[in-house]
Amino acid sequence: MATPTRSGRSGFARDPEPSRPAGPGVTQEETRRRNLGAVLRHIHVHGPTSRAELTSWLGLNRSTIGALAADLASAGLVTEEAPSSGRRAGRPSLVVSPRSDHVYAHALSVEADRLRAARVGLGGRILDLREVDRPDGMSAVDALGPLIGLIHDMERSVASGALLVGGAVAVTDTARDRDGRIRIGGPDETLRAAIEAELTVGPGFVAGDLADIAAVAEHVRGAAAGVDSLVYLHGGLGVSAGIIIGGRSVAGHRGHGGKVGHMVVNRDGLLCGCGSHGCWETEIGEAALLRHAGRESGGPAAVVEVLRAAGSGEPTAGAAVRQVADWLGFGVANLVNVVNPDAVVFGGSLRDLYTVGADTVRRRLDAMVLPAFREHVRLRVAALGRDAVLVGAAELAFGRLLADPLNVGVAAPTGDGVVPAR
Amino acid sequence: MATPTRSGRSGFARDPEPSRPAGPGVTQEETRRRNLGAVLRHIHVHGPTSRAELTSWLGLNRSTIGALAADLASAGLVTEEAPSSGRRAGRPSLVVSPRSDHVYAHALSVEADRLRAARVGLGGRILDLREVDRPDGMSAVDALGPLIGLIHDMERSVASGALLVGGAVAVTDTARDRDGRIRIGGPDETLRAAIEAELTVGPGFVAGDLADIAAVAEHVRGAAAGVDSLVYLHGGLGVSAGIIIGGRSVAGHRGHGGKVGHMVVNRDGLLCGCGSHGCWETEIGEAALLRHAGRESGGPAAVVEVLRAAGSGEPTAGAAVRQVADWLGFGVANLVNVVNPDAVVFGGSLRDLYTVGADTVRRRLDAMVLPAFREHVRLRVAALGRDAVLVGAAELAFGRLLADPLNVGVAAPTGDGVVPAR
Repeated sequence: MATPTRSGRSGFARDPEPSRPAGPGVTQEETRRRNLGAVLRHIHVHGPTSRAELTSWLGLNRSTIGALAADLASAGLVTEEAPSSGRRAGRPSLVVSPRSDHVYAHALSVEADRLRAARVGLGGRILDLREVDRPDGMSAVDALGPLIGLIHDMERSVASGALLVGGAVAVTDTARDRDGRIRIGGPDETLRAAIEAELTVGPGFVAGDLADIAAVAEHVRGAAAGVDSLVYLHGGLGVSAGIIIGGRSVAGHRGHGGKVGHMVVNRDGLLCGCGSHGCWETEIGEAALLRHAGRESGGPAAVVEVLRAAGSGEPTAGAAVRQVADWLGFGVANLVNVVNPDAVVFGGSLRDLYTVGADTVRRRLDAMVLPAFREHVRLRVAALGRDAVLVGAAELAFGRLLADPLNVGVAAPTGDGVVPAR
Repeated sequence: MATPTRSGRSGFARDPEPSRPAGPGVTQEETRRRNLGAVLRHIHVHGPTSRAELTSWLGLNRSTIGALAADLASAGLVTEEAPSSGRRAGRPSLVVSPRSDHVYAHALSVEADRLRAARVGLGGRILDLREVDRPDGMSAVDALGPLIGLIHDMERSVASGALLVGGAVAVTDTARDRDGRIRIGGPDETLRAAIEAELTVGPGFVAGDLADIAAVAEHVRGAAAGVDSLVYLHGGLGVSAGIIIGGRSVAGHRGHGGKVGHMVVNRDGLLCGCGSHGCWETEIGEAALLRHAGRESGGPAAVVEVLRAAGSGEPTAGAAVRQVADWLGFGVANLVNVVNPDAVVFGGSLRDLYTVGADTVRRRLDAMVLPAFREHVRLRVAALGRDAVLVGAAELAFGRLLADPLNVGVAAPTGDGVVPAR
């Protein structure tokens, strides 16, 4: 399978908008590329949209929009059809729709206990989804083998001529070692090298942190759609966050974001896997809840049981939830004071903890957050559930297409989009 | 004095790049605007640059660069001259330079104890600087009157025909009330209304938080030049930060950043002015240092004396510095774990505290920051000193010009660029 030069290399990326090919100057070709991308992004995010709406929203004239839409249709990325209903006097404006069944990305996730792979269509629709267990002790790098197998399985049912535009993998930074202990993820460079060595899936592959990627999904299509700045918190074995400000992921050194689970909230707290004492993760992670509830261990099922018991009035479980929810509120309050977001979204297992302990969390925020910030910050539970990770990974993968719609994507000629690299 | 329609309104802004006039579509006119802005921004930041270097840096062809530079020269924004030295064979490439003496912005600061006003030329050169005391109890709004007076004074010596491109005011969020107590700043909306009512300085005025603005200056021209992501910490009466990621200020709700001074670091700590206990500010502010050193009060001079005494081995002062520096390191470690910046820059009074207590700060970071982050984060002292605030405010003010170089700026026809609004 031929791989276009420009996008043929795997790479790590956090921001779905790739950098421009040359310096900051803008050529006419670049202008056309950006306008094509703007049209395609709009229908990717908002679904079928009339040419008239696109004209008004993009601030370009009708003939330009017509030409851009026609180019996207010729490339097989969109359809254009007369509206089926709501007809008014005069010639109706054609409706431009994403070809979700035809244009797709591979979205993978390496989660604490599961490996998942999906085909996600343009427009964000999950077309196919497969998963397998991730055994304790399996590194993110070792997980690539099974994930490639899942991709192979999915590709068997892809219609000939469908357009694969890229892939992305979301990787949790926390896993269990062979003895079942919680470990912080290994160095990203190893994973990057492994992806480059083992995966050449269509026109390139990107990887990112699971919480950052779920944050993108909640921002584009979930609980924080239309919100400009948010902190998305993801609970699993550890606690991580994706911070989005002004529509962009806040990613520090070389595009890698921070790890909020390792804010120290309690200097007298327990030893954390990272070597510090009293990290937020040690106070609000699943292990903390089980510890306070007097459950020695048990994993996610035990956590669900404690939350359920607390909800039905069992005193020990209730006290455990209040204690952990108070530390949850403490860390959230500090993040709100540092970032001043419009919204905080609770995802993963923190969704359930927040649902049961919301009163405690809110009381802590009322006490600690600066009043000017408290009055506008909204607390929300994640809307996309476990799909967020895959939907967000697809957003990353679609980034290249949306940046340069006519120059990305390879037809899957044999129903098998995976080729070994080199 | 006529004020162009597009930029005639005052407004709050954090990001020097204003939003585009219409939707995300790109017109040819917009393309030209962006290219003009890219050329002007380059020489504004990097100083005199040959057309050949601009061509290679911007990724546009020579004739385009030539036309852009000629347009900027015609508008009086740059000069073009043959290089004075280093001549090589062939026709030398013209050098494009900012007209720093001719094109300028007003930069104002409302600091805890001072009010300052400067004229800053394109290229970041301070052309004129005036200051007066800010009495205890004077609100930021009340400070606008004296600042307008300083602007009037400066404008008297401006050459006729000079081009005023805008202004910005940096406002600290912490001040002293009439009884000398430290207060967190009032609501920004009041200040915004006052600016709109009282100041119409040339083509518009923007305002921002002092630490955010100093961060911009250190990022563009100071200790963090060329660094992609940084946390700038500013010590004064309070503690505040400007966080820049991927070259952009991290600003949450409606463009207003957080207030790191009100992270709670010590749940058992003292009551803070904000109503919480153990805010970072209560542990590392000037008052904390004086308290630990057994000095009851004394302001900045007393702080300098304690730091000097610690440097020369006085045990009580040394212990006070170590205690405060340890809390400084604690908060910095948490911010580094949350944001993963390339650099942390210590400015304002924290510059001096860090200089004396660096070993303690570094030890705390070594213990708490995730190793993968610790190995790359650089700790630096601010390079621009007190000028940072004014240089940064000018950067904000130049933002409009750099976004649309041929459509901003009004000649100061009478040597007096200030007119009352409406």
